Amino acid sequence: MNLQIGEFSPEELADMYGTPLLVVDVSKVKERIEEFKLHLKEIPHLLCYSVKANPIPGLLKEISDTVLLEASSPGELLVSLKASKPDRIVLDGFKDSDLITAAMKLNVFLLNSDSIQELSEIGKMKMDLDFQVETIFGIRVSLGLKGESDIVSTSTLEDKFGVVPEQIRDALRISNEFGLELKCIHTHIGSQIERPGTYREVVERMFSLPHSEEFDLFDLGGGFGIRYSKTVPSLEAFLGELSDAYLEISDRVGFCPKIILEPGRSIVGESGYFISREKTRKKKGRVEWSIVDLSTNHLLERLYLFRTYPSWNEGNEVKIGGPLCFSGDELGVGRVSNGLLVLKNCGAYTISKSSQYNLYPRPKVILVDGYKSWEIKEGESYLKVLNDFGAD
Amino acid sequence: MNLQIGEFSPEELADMYGTPLLVVDVSKVKERIEEFKLHLKEIPHLLCYSVKANPIPGLLKEISDTVLLEASSPGELLVSLKASKPDRIVLDGFKDSDLITAAMKLNVFLLNSDSIQELSEIGKMKMDLDFQVETIFGIRVSLGLKGESDIVSTSTLEDKFGVVPEQIRDALRISNEFGLELKCIHTHIGSQIERPGTYREVVERMFSLPHSEEFDLFDLGGGFGIRYSKTVPSLEAFLGELSDAYLEISDRVGFCPKIILEPGRSIVGESGYFISREKTRKKKGRVEWSIVDLSTNHLLERLYLFRTYPSWNEGNEVKIGGPLCFSGDELGVGRVSNGLLVLKNCGAYTISKSSQYNLYPRPKVILVDGYKSWEIKEGESYLKVLNDFGAD
Repeated sequence: MNLQIGEFSPEELADMYGTPLLVVDVSKVKERIEEFKLHLKEIPHLLCYSVKANPIPGLLKEISDTVLLEASSPGELLVSLKASKPDRIVLDGFKDSDLITAAMKLNVFLLNSDSIQELSEIGKMKMDLDFQVETIFGIRVSLGLKGESDIVSTSTLEDKFGVVPEQIRDALRISNEFGLELKCIHTHIGSQIERPGTYREVVERMFSLPHSEEFDLFDLGGGFGIRYSKTVPSLEAFLGELSDAYLEISDRVGFCPKIILEPGRSIVGESGYFISREKTRKKKGRVEWSIVDLSTNHLLERLYLFRTYPSWNEGNEVKIGGPLCFSGDELGVGRVSNGLLVLKNCGAYTISKSSQYNLYPRPKVILVDGYKSWEIKEGESYLKVLNDFGAD
Repeated sequence: MNLQIGEFSPEELADMYGTPLLVVDVSKVKERIEEFKLHLKEIPHLLCYSVKANPIPGLLKEISDTVLLEASSPGELLVSLKASKPDRIVLDGFKDSDLITAAMKLNVFLLNSDSIQELSEIGKMKMDLDFQVETIFGIRVSLGLKGESDIVSTSTLEDKFGVVPEQIRDALRISNEFGLELKCIHTHIGSQIERPGTYREVVERMFSLPHSEEFDLFDLGGGFGIRYSKTVPSLEAFLGELSDAYLEISDRVGFCPKIILEPGRSIVGESGYFISREKTRKKKGRVEWSIVDLSTNHLLERLYLFRTYPSWNEGNEVKIGGPLCFSGDELGVGRVSNGLLVLKNCGAYTISKSSQYNLYPRPKVILVDGYKSWEIKEGESYLKVLNDFGAD
């Protein structure tokens, strides 16, 4: 097996750190960020990492000099503050009044509001404050575009996020009323988008929204697809389409808002590898099974949404099962060599969605950078798991 | 709202403990256990609670006098030992050699092996031991029956569990070779079975397995459906069908194995209630949304498998969303009254599968018994969640 993660073989990492193990090649993450910036260089832009894709503090610290951080919950705001500065944080998602107050006190860079109701709450709160708020405000708008998976489609007129285009006028009215500078329109069309043309349409619709010329910032969210089971277009294709559409339309309409992107999956997904060890090889009738020490409760999207993560090893194909007492805990057909199964493209939405089902511990996470490797999240002991469920 | 959990209203519990809150009415759990025993009284049987459905130690302690505990992982064996005694524990699932040794040293009541390979490993290990092992051994067999949901179907000839019927002869041969008393055949056909007739078929197939007369115990697993979205038959209907089939066939074939059942969902599911509080009410176009503080990462089966948990409250129907930055985080159409949404039938596979996605804490769990209520799992702080992901 001539496969390498940085300068390490999977065998070396498995021996050094144990399994199951999530490895993130941080130099690949940084390269990916540079690739984003390269392909966006023709247009005014800000690049923001969506923390929810992989919120491990040790990873955020490595990249927070090069990207803003997008938080979408109180916990994500806290973890972003550990790794970055308030004026490099964008806050999205639902917010209670404590979170809104905290964001304004901290003067986060941008706060995207989700609804007219929230905006008016923000306005009232801001009027009561006795300090200067530097935060820029935005409003999330549904473009009426369907994402490419039902379950991760976030810009339809029916889903729970944002306002419909007709409500932008209300948003501006309320902002004026409370002296709130509403400078950003925000959207996000879903996850694992696989057609670059979708981003052309996003840009077109943003420029066509009511009052779009009153906004300095167009925040287009994320959603750029990565390679799980099938080939998807390159980042260059997605960003080329986006940039071209921007240049054409802004030239035509005569204004040049700054574009914000908030990718998560496409920044960290392809840099992450799950390494697991075969625990049992069994024959059931004529079928050969390899039962490994990695389970679908760390790969929930694998189980329910995208189905397959490519495996990396050589050897004969066998059916791969995890240890859970759950028939859906199948990792698919894969190759085990030297007793290891390595899954690629596991950097995003694995550890952040993982559970302790069957009272199994969540895995250790390490970073690799060339010849260096270090632990950024320890593995859990059984005792810790039991305590999490209330054992004394 | 005249709804009660024990002697409490949801409002009282929400005020006392905060939200989101999982409440388990332990007197209902105990009644359910008695109902199982009542409807099984015609046949020799043992009742076992499947820990994975809800593994909170404080709940296990309440019921471990009346049922055996079924563990299917190292963590579940540990938590079972905290609540019960080794001779009242059944061990299923995949096992590494440490877990097998531990189970034999402890003399757990029954160890159901999953494969020929595992059985032969157990045999070798037992021969090397210098103490008496009282544990009974079993072998899990797939009956070739499909469950009623693709994803929770665990007795087909293709899934990862157990052996095919033709391998029972091998299992007996290997057990003889190593002096291992193989006394149990074990099966489990899946989850949320909704046709009582399925259990008649399970009993028929168990009696028809090769060498079935050599086994003293038939462990039939669990899977009895409960009422999520639609009406399912009563427990009496399921167990009546099972008992009748057993009595007819055992009379005909002339042997009377003891039946073991391992329900989880049907013991705790209907006794659990999630109480959540509305955080925001928003209008998006003409649709009204209530955003509550409970999210689908605590209701994963709701999201992907069974779709709906009935809500309990009065009031107008609105669309209910959780706070997650994920469009799939919809709790359906429900009723919010006095600012609360109460979901019924949440006792099983909610807290055991819950995650901290978006860095949201997992909820507190309390037990209610008539006029008494007490906390058995504390709610998590944001700081705890951050630490879980590796913050220092």
